Amino acid sequence: MHLLSIDDLSDDQIATILDEGERWFSYNRQPRRNDHRLDGLTVVNAFFENSTRTLLSFEIAANRLGAQVVTMQVEHSSIKKGETLDDTARTLNAMRPDALVIRHRTSGAPASVAAIMDCPVINAGDGTGEHPTQALLDAATIRQHFGRVEGLKIAICGDLKHSRVARSNAKLLGRLGAELRFAAPPSLMPDDLPGGALDKAVEGADVVMMLRVQRERLEEELGDAPGEYFERFGLTEERFATAAPGAVIMHPGPINRGVEIDGSLADHPTRSLIVRQVEMGVAVRMACLDLLTAERLPR
Amino acid sequence: MHLLSIDDLSDDQIATILDEGERWFSYNRQPRRNDHRLDGLTVVNAFFENSTRTLLSFEIAANRLGAQVVTMQVEHSSIKKGETLDDTARTLNAMRPDALVIRHRTSGAPASVAAIMDCPVINAGDGTGEHPTQALLDAATIRQHFGRVEGLKIAICGDLKHSRVARSNAKLLGRLGAELRFAAPPSLMPDDLPGGALDKAVEGADVVMMLRVQRERLEEELGDAPGEYFERFGLTEERFATAAPGAVIMHPGPINRGVEIDGSLADHPTRSLIVRQVEMGVAVRMACLDLLTAERLPR
Amino acid sequence: MHLLSIDDLSDDQIATILDEGERWFSYNRQPRRNDHRLDGLTVVNAFFENSTRTLLSFEIAANRLGAQVVTMQVEHSSIKKGETLDDTARTLNAMRPDALVIRHRTSGAPASVAAIMDCPVINAGDGTGEHPTQALLDAATIRQHFGRVEGLKIAICGDLKHSRVARSNAKLLGRLGAELRFAAPPSLMPDDLPGGALDKAVEGADVVMMLRVQRERLEEELGDAPGEYFERFGLTEERFATAAPGAVIMHPGPINRGVEIDGSLADHPTRSLIVRQVEMGVAVRMACLDLLTAERLPR
Repeated sequence: MHLLSIDDLSDDQIATILDEGERWFSYNRQPRRNDHRLDGLTVVNAFFENSTRTLLSFEIAANRLGAQVVTMQVEHSSIKKGETLDDTARTLNAMRPDALVIRHRTSGAPASVAAIMDCPVINAGDGTGEHPTQALLDAATIRQHFGRVEGLKIAICGDLKHSRVARSNAKLLGRLGAELRFAAPPSLMPDDLPGGALDKAVEGADVVMMLRVQRERLEEELGDAPGEYFERFGLTEERFATAAPGAVIMHPGPINRGVEIDGSLADHPTRSLIVRQVEMGVAVRMACLDLLTAERLPR
Repeated sequence: MHLLSIDDLSDDQIATILDEGERWFSYNRQPRRNDHRLDGLTVVNAFFENSTRTLLSFEIAANRLGAQVVTMQVEHSSIKKGETLDDTARTLNAMRPDALVIRHRTSGAPASVAAIMDCPVINAGDGTGEHPTQALLDAATIRQHFGRVEGLKIAICGDLKHSRVARSNAKLLGRLGAELRFAAPPSLMPDDLPGGALDKAVEGADVVMMLRVQRERLEEELGDAPGEYFERFGLTEERFATAAPGAVIMHPGPINRGVEIDGSLADHPTRSLIVRQVEMGVAVRMACLDLLTAERLPR
Repeated sequence: MHLLSIDDLSDDQIATILDEGERWFSYNRQPRRNDHRLDGLTVVNAFFENSTRTLLSFEIAANRLGAQVVTMQVEHSSIKKGETLDDTARTLNAMRPDALVIRHRTSGAPASVAAIMDCPVINAGDGTGEHPTQALLDAATIRQHFGRVEGLKIAICGDLKHSRVARSNAKLLGRLGAELRFAAPPSLMPDDLPGGALDKAVEGADVVMMLRVQRERLEEELGDAPGEYFERFGLTEERFATAAPGAVIMHPGPINRGVEIDGSLADHPTRSLIVRQVEMGVAVRMACLDLLTAERLPR
């Protein structure tokens, strides 16, 4: 079993991951020693695209279950020597890891790799494709805060066109019964998501999830200075004031203060769940690694 | 005891490594937990030259025996600050690792380092010198497939001049009783190996081992487009058809499809042992790490 | 409790670290398996500035106590994406490590991070600020050699202006009762240390600690060729001959032979403690990690 897309998960598996994620969240907060269920298993992180927080999160999650972690970063990869992705996958598979976590700048690359691997593969973000563990940690964070996801009005706002986070969340939060709203600048509106205006999306929302905008994109595609983008498409205090009472703010990070979100909103002591998302990330990835490897090595 | 060259091994030690390598190969294929014999030992990988597959292979091998693995990559090294190799070796030795795996672009560098270290040193490839664990995994792969190495006709073809793989294999496979044939483009013919023409080397061979050619070298030294090299010096289906019945194809990887080898030969379901070599690589390196550290910490 | 500066340590804690450091030094020299006291704890190394030896030293120290080690290097960091240091610290904290080791090119950065973290933070060098574990390993090395620090004449010589090593040693060795002398080239003299001439500092000294000079600085600030610097400000055999009988030579490494120190002095079999410092480094860092984490997880 692989976790390449939210579509790979049954409703039961989603429920298990959210439940176990919350349980690991509490476990990680206590003075603890690592769990030992993955003792003696090898988890390989193959990151063909740089990422501090996602890589660290997976490394810590695997360690905390007792696994041995080996990380391959693209700069050191044979890819640069002209090896095909399939040949790299055959090489990785021949080393007999017990799970493979892969991030790649090309959409669909993890699926190609998974077709070759004998072990479970987790997609840690592929191009403009999916980022299923991010959506799972987002859902777990929302559920932990509100006690439910069903019926909540959730606005996902920003560069929808390039966002694998938006794509995975659209699937997962939709399946969990949320009422979704999407908003993007006109030039960053994708074809497959029903984007609208930011003000309308935020108004009355229970959750406002802002997406990161790439600074390169700001200049090239929008012709905007960061300040201008903020005025037109950022989460300002004025905009957030129109959300539902008790509304919360989320962001997959890293945040651009004053670009897509007001710094004081990001730091809001009760309304911002941004740091909580990071914490839930380790917990949910522990749940995913546990679920996927359990099939091969029953506990 | 160090493993810098095939010359460092007695015939008995070679036999032990091949036997144990085959045993670990089977072990790694089963649903398994890591072995614990190197629990609490520190293996340092000092890679002064980038290499994805060799580094990963050593990291996984050490982990699978229970060792703690610390990797130092050249980009982060004091070498850039002008430290001499001897000073780096003294520093590494002072940290009291239990084994050191070293790759370096200068031939002889691992031997200089080993002269300083108190722990066993494994040469993971030095310039145009040797790459003994590659030869050992190649021999183990051949022996596993044919049941023997003795008497087999083995053709080693390609950039012999710069190939530490060829150099180590010439020693090892020769000692194991193979009948060796070498073939290289005229400008890539070394002085110390008896190179000949490709067609003659492949004809009737039981094993055709193709070497990687550096794309930079293609242009600079050969003035060839990749396609031309392939026609003149690559393993084409026509050429391979002249090999012995049941002949197999090997390559240390990463492969250049359509340059030194036809892609469909590389992928041949029964004749290509290329992926098998990678798998045997982890196993043979486990055997080497086990053998070398056993002297210091009896089991 | 954090270890950001020598000022963070009580006299008792300093004594404990030196005692335990010497004990681990002996432990590491025997045929050993790792200790298990940090089994199941996660130590994160966040290195925002490259460093081979310090990073390796901390990684091995943490491993040798049984901890799981995760290393984040700046090249792969979100810092490059414009994330603030505080946001990075919040992210790291949310991953619930049990200790954080941080190196940063900005003085004070570890203190900013520590203000956010719930776990102990160790400063592994910050700009021109402090490098407390280097001073502790220097003091332990001196004490191991002489049986005491008190009353020894210790000359610290070189680029005092940019040296966090000098700054931490000035505090620590001063508190331990050494008689300190400082010497620097005029343009590398800081405002807060009482620098003098090299010849005067070395004369009669029991310990001569030479600091590394950056080659870039040599050319830009001194207009000196390396050879000229050596004549004027380096430790030559002539200069060292004026030190006390039994005087020893120290250097935090990596050394520039023929720039700040004569190569034969660096290699002196009885007078040079430079390699010993590296060995004591792992031992003292084990003592620091043990002390700092013991508070959270009593043993």
